[in-house]
Amino acid sequence: MSFFTQRLTIIGVGLIGGSLARRLKKMELVGEVVGVNRSEASLNKALELGVIDRGTHDPLEGVDGADMVLVATPVNAIPAVVRQFAPALAPGAVVTDAGSAKERIVAACEDLMPEGAHFVGGHPIAGREFSGVEASVADLYEGARTVLTLTQRTDEKALERVRDMWEATGSIVDIMEPAYHDQVLAATSHLPHLIAYTTMHTLADLGETIPDEVFRLAAGAGFKDFTRIASSDPAMWRDVSLMNREALLEFLNRFQEHLDDLKRRVDEGDADGLYGAFARSKKARDRILVVENPQGKRIDDE
Amino acid sequence: MSFFTQRLTIIGVGLIGGSLARRLKKMELVGEVVGVNRSEASLNKALELGVIDRGTHDPLEGVDGADMVLVATPVNAIPAVVRQFAPALAPGAVVTDAGSAKERIVAACEDLMPEGAHFVGGHPIAGREFSGVEASVADLYEGARTVLTLTQRTDEKALERVRDMWEATGSIVDIMEPAYHDQVLAATSHLPHLIAYTTMHTLADLGETIPDEVFRLAAGAGFKDFTRIASSDPAMWRDVSLMNREALLEFLNRFQEHLDDLKRRVDEGDADGLYGAFARSKKARDRILVVENPQGKRIDDE
Repeated sequence: MSFFTQRLTIIGVGLIGGSLARRLKKMELVGEVVGVNRSEASLNKALELGVIDRGTHDPLEGVDGADMVLVATPVNAIPAVVRQFAPALAPGAVVTDAGSAKERIVAACEDLMPEGAHFVGGHPIAGREFSGVEASVADLYEGARTVLTLTQRTDEKALERVRDMWEATGSIVDIMEPAYHDQVLAATSHLPHLIAYTTMHTLADLGETIPDEVFRLAAGAGFKDFTRIASSDPAMWRDVSLMNREALLEFLNRFQEHLDDLKRRVDEGDADGLYGAFARSKKARDRILVVENPQGKRIDDE
Repeated sequence: MSFFTQRLTIIGVGLIGGSLARRLKKMELVGEVVGVNRSEASLNKALELGVIDRGTHDPLEGVDGADMVLVATPVNAIPAVVRQFAPALAPGAVVTDAGSAKERIVAACEDLMPEGAHFVGGHPIAGREFSGVEASVADLYEGARTVLTLTQRTDEKALERVRDMWEATGSIVDIMEPAYHDQVLAATSHLPHLIAYTTMHTLADLGETIPDEVFRLAAGAGFKDFTRIASSDPAMWRDVSLMNREALLEFLNRFQEHLDDLKRRVDEGDADGLYGAFARSKKARDRILVVENPQGKRIDDE
């Protein structure tokens, strides 16, 4: 791995793009970072923090002369902004993104690339407790995983460059087909987020009738951990849900089948059926605690 | 509050009963602790650790001369064991339990009390990462909440004694009707546990087809927190589900209504509907983070 980018343009400088820029600057792996944001305040903040060297509101101007472009806007805005700046891409430019659904985005963006420019879909899976460029840090990706996508149209050298870039941040890179990524993320991230929201929505109904006890007792009952992801950004999850609709619906339907079984077993007092379902679930969950990641650290915080 | 028990008998000495005994002994608030367990090994362990002073397999012998009896067996075994030892209760004895569903248990156990003995339903809501008497600690209940039940048959003095006992452990005591407890716990604990199990069950299906990626990527996607409670004891949750069946079914049905809405919105691409549901859920969740508990500590670990 030896990575260097002469000019990195980040469209949508926030936590994700800002953290990448900080790391590459720290390691002296980037010549110049250009930021493109709609908001003047965000651009000024990014300049002030030294995350970017130069800022503009115009994506066309922003990508001019860049050999690497990261699109880190909300997921549903990615194809539109790529369409906008594509004509200005330099020959040999590599464009990648940070959207958490991949199939639609990759298909659309590959179509939009002019001759000589290449798109590689990406999804850095990193914490989002806080957002915005103020929250960006150079070690955000240390030990995290980044998925890059491989299709029949993927340029091998472009994929290699994007992989080298993310590996330089300390991230572990997984390469897979876009549809496969969307299946895996629907199962492990999108479904859990929507189920956590739905659980919380169910309890929100109670807010008026039994206000305080619910929330006080909840604290001791594993409830906070379970619903933490229901504090995520509603706009982001609206967009992700729609962008990965098919895979998500598939898992929502699978979830529904298991929920139907559960309700029937509770209703009928089927003790053995309940035990079997819970035991199987526990076994799958406990497996997470012993899966070793490639760096030999245990995925285990308990 | 001034509490002292001459002889405390614990039926089923594990994490819950053991932690109570350790705390009362440490504070010199108990004369003698008698343990009743079916397993010889558990009794010996409890004796060895100094958690109990004396052990027996016989509940009748165990409660003889006790002024306080805590039943800390699995929830579905509580009424049967109370029926067994009730004839041996001393006049004035107070019996309480630690079951996480209350309506059925309290009704059954109140019926079983002989003249002069009193039952007060209890539910200490404390962590259960580890179980067994080996895991018991004197400060398990410090800052935790304990629910005690109040019915038309509750003896005021008996309730006061059980409250004093739990407050001596550092617990905050809430007093409510059994059915109300079951509603609140169904919402904040039983529903989330069953939904976490069901989510994990949905993913267990994938175990064979996409084994490692699912679990590796899962680690970075809020998934571990969300499913931690799916590692709970399946036998305990089978019993709790059946013991609190009615309240649980009510909340499963409410959850189902919100899930139906969610699926429809994803399917129809209803962006505004999704945003509204997620925003309402987030608002309810965020509320947990600012609810002050009576000691002035923030219920907030983020």
